[in-house]
Amino acid sequence: MDEVRMIEVKEEILADNIQVAAGVRARLQNTKTMLVNLMSSPGSGKTSLILQTIANLKDSVRLGVIEADIESKVDAEKVAARGIQAVQLRTGGFCHLDATMVTQGIDALPVDDLDCVIIENVGNLVCPAEFDTGAHKNVMILSVPEGDDKPLKYPLMFSICDLLLINKMDYLSLSDFDLSALRKRVMVLNPGIVILEVSCKTGAGIENWVNWLSAQIETFKGLK
Amino acid sequence: MDEVRMIEVKEEILADNIQVAAGVRARLQNTKTMLVNLMSSPGSGKTSLILQTIANLKDSVRLGVIEADIESKVDAEKVAARGIQAVQLRTGGFCHLDATMVTQGIDALPVDDLDCVIIENVGNLVCPAEFDTGAHKNVMILSVPEGDDKPLKYPLMFSICDLLLINKMDYLSLSDFDLSALRKRVMVLNPGIVILEVSCKTGAGIENWVNWLSAQIETFKGLK
Repeated sequence: MDEVRMIEVKEEILADNIQVAAGVRARLQNTKTMLVNLMSSPGSGKTSLILQTIANLKDSVRLGVIEADIESKVDAEKVAARGIQAVQLRTGGFCHLDATMVTQGIDALPVDDLDCVIIENVGNLVCPAEFDTGAHKNVMILSVPEGDDKPLKYPLMFSICDLLLINKMDYLSLSDFDLSALRKRVMVLNPGIVILEVSCKTGAGIENWVNWLSAQIETFKGLK
Repeated sequence: MDEVRMIEVKEEILADNIQVAAGVRARLQNTKTMLVNLMSSPGSGKTSLILQTIANLKDSVRLGVIEADIESKVDAEKVAARGIQAVQLRTGGFCHLDATMVTQGIDALPVDDLDCVIIENVGNLVCPAEFDTGAHKNVMILSVPEGDDKPLKYPLMFSICDLLLINKMDYLSLSDFDLSALRKRVMVLNPGIVILEVSCKTGAGIENWVNWLSAQIETFKGLK
């Protein structure tokens, strides 16, 4: 296998993607629909966070959800069961969403009537960090059981996000996770990032996430 | 972006990789060095399992380790500190190892003098499942906090592994993880898979993993 050629292909794909992403962003600026790209490892709590967000903001924010999964549509079904507009993208083996796939999701949603669309990206800390989806805000979840060393191993992901949610805080007592070490490692990579501690299971800290998201949407829409 | 072209590129890369992987496998058959490919999400316990394996088998099995990481070399340093031959591959942004990268790792290890080399693949449940590394055995870890629905979302990974380790069993009491549902979901995908429950933190169940690995090595070397 010619490794150099593989890199060229990747760069070409990434360059094309940047243009498509800029188009997505401009289009949703026009409809005043804020696009949020939610990323994490598998099982960190992306779907649980979206369900908590729906429960808290359903009456004040017109939400839509784009779910990405390699195979199943269990997540989109959970969202749709809450009466929220949801689209499932099956990536068919791809380990990330790119802006072209997101465009297909956007096309399938009534974005003119939505204030915010949340993308649940593929569970992966690597490739999703490299592909601009066209989102206005990038959010990641790190869950306590994954460990406090993840910024050392997946620095790009921590570098490109506007907000880091530390989820499964209810596991902290059983864990040797060092919150202070984690914060230091993240701040070195991304001094402007906001870090919030939550438990999607118990609901602890969810109000801080909901307040952050609401404020971003208001600013985006020019309401404050 | 032309999605069809991207798929063709991927298929070409995968086809090339299959040939290189077959070469790795044959080469290590000659030196009687069993190659084990260890895969999981980030933070599921790959490094902890390798450290437990070293602690248990250091005196009876000549081990080597190939560590893959996007950026850091913390894992290889932990392994080398135990007196084990370790190589760190920096994937430079790639989300998986392929057989060509593994060849570079093998070239850097004294495989003639090793009974078993363990590859710690990139933390990712997607792409590593698609790229044959040349390993004789594929092993995956799923940790309890990740949830019992992962076989529905990442079926290929569960399908290609010889052994599934359910790690962080010490978190089970805090979790709604359904072991019986998980086993059923995995068995539908891969009826021949072996499933073992462990805690790399407490050491519970590690003897079952060590016994399994030792037996595989003995069979591979033609000793039983």
